[in-house]
Amino acid sequence: MPAATSVDSPPSLGRLARVRVVLVETSLSANMGAVARAMKTMGLSQLVLVRPQQQLDAEALARAAGADDLLARARICDTLTDALAGCRLVIGSSARARALAWPEVDPAGCAERLVEEAAEGEVALLLGRERSGLTNDELASCHYLARIPANPDYSSLNIAAAAQVFAYELRRRALTIGAPASGAGAPEQAALGSTQAGVHSGGDGSPPEELATADEMAGFYAHLEQTLVAIGFADPDQSRTLRRRLRRLFNRARPDRTELNILRGILSAAAGRKDPNRFRR
Amino acid sequence: MPAATSVDSPPSLGRLARVRVVLVETSLSANMGAVARAMKTMGLSQLVLVRPQQQLDAEALARAAGADDLLARARICDTLTDALAGCRLVIGSSARARALAWPEVDPAGCAERLVEEAAEGEVALLLGRERSGLTNDELASCHYLARIPANPDYSSLNIAAAAQVFAYELRRRALTIGAPASGAGAPEQAALGSTQAGVHSGGDGSPPEELATADEMAGFYAHLEQTLVAIGFADPDQSRTLRRRLRRLFNRARPDRTELNILRGILSAAAGRKDPNRFRR
Repeated sequence: MPAATSVDSPPSLGRLARVRVVLVETSLSANMGAVARAMKTMGLSQLVLVRPQQQLDAEALARAAGADDLLARARICDTLTDALAGCRLVIGSSARARALAWPEVDPAGCAERLVEEAAEGEVALLLGRERSGLTNDELASCHYLARIPANPDYSSLNIAAAAQVFAYELRRRALTIGAPASGAGAPEQAALGSTQAGVHSGGDGSPPEELATADEMAGFYAHLEQTLVAIGFADPDQSRTLRRRLRRLFNRARPDRTELNILRGILSAAAGRKDPNRFRR
Repeated sequence: MPAATSVDSPPSLGRLARVRVVLVETSLSANMGAVARAMKTMGLSQLVLVRPQQQLDAEALARAAGADDLLARARICDTLTDALAGCRLVIGSSARARALAWPEVDPAGCAERLVEEAAEGEVALLLGRERSGLTNDELASCHYLARIPANPDYSSLNIAAAAQVFAYELRRRALTIGAPASGAGAPEQAALGSTQAGVHSGGDGSPPEELATADEMAGFYAHLEQTLVAIGFADPDQSRTLRRRLRRLFNRARPDRTELNILRGILSAAAGRKDPNRFRR
């Protein structure tokens, strides 16, 4: 793919500015710095830290090298929901197979989806704790899991090394889309990141920028779970499997804003029927 | 490319055992450890250190994490020639464009060539110093330069991050070759790493394992340069550009062993005509 190396800045490179890299409860400041460096080498700029376990100290700055500006601008959040606010697509990195099957992509497929959706709005790549990765509940916030094909005997990539691989594929994808040969090369490019799961990318009626964002989905899930309790169906706090299955279902559907409003209307209506205050409304 | 993630160990994965990662004058032991980890996650096992600037200390072991076995088995060499002995193909990593044009590949093209040639024998990926990379003379030992497409405003990948990208592409390539769909997918795979430069991969007459190895080429170049002095043509020590141009020329040709013997016979003969001792032989 010589075009990818010879084209300096096709317009689609600008999409990389809409890709957030979200680190959840990272233990070591050195790793936060190293992730910043990996990001900047590939033209990514939005670093978000959820409950970082160390300060952005001298070690972080040393490892960031010339990417200290990304650290200085890093957003620090208390909750994953805050970190993902406004994102239309979320892909989580996962080192191992999960009990509950989730749509899975390789790094090229991850990049394909993130760069495609970044044309419309904000997207996020989620990287978990150094030792334990993402919890199942955190993964349930994701539309896809991304897995780097690794040595089954030793699959433990350093978090910054994983970030480098994902960032490399993101840049590669952004360069490919903008390259003049992208028309002719489209079949190969599609093959690069193809999986069985289709992507609802909008554009088939409603404008794609109206897809519900991650925070809107989080609000919906909270509403849904309250409603499940209210209507006496089940308490999702008692059944995490149920909670995750529901999330997987709705994440796969990728509702747009209007659809989400309809769903929430249904929830309100459903709860309202059991609501002791319903006659006051 | 779902096959790449779902196939555990096609036979071509074994080729990764023939890919040496050669680090030249690495400054920091932490980086040596981190490179070992990056290698092992992708199934590479041969680490070679040329004049490492620090001991393989506790910091190296900490960064290697579960890849300390690669560090323990790492070969330490005084010269690049020793490190490359027996290699039929050498690709050097290069962060910047060079004055003297050399055949260039991207990481996917690099992996394509190394994995293809590793079917026949040993190959090497050369990574230079953290700050200054490889010297032009070291690059002249390479058949290709490999460049990771990076942010032109900040292209400084950490050496272990670069190793992770190359190792990732090597594993990806090895998985693709062994995957059952490799026949059907071949055009896409070829497109992945295509460049303008052709590869002489043997198999067109002489058996491919007879290609001259890196140490044989080094011996030839030494012989050539002595001969140039002996015949009064030029002193390559006085003209580094000349030396590199010659290396580029012969590296591109990729002589097999028989051809190299012929060339050396010619050199001997040429020097012999100016050799004051020629009548004693």
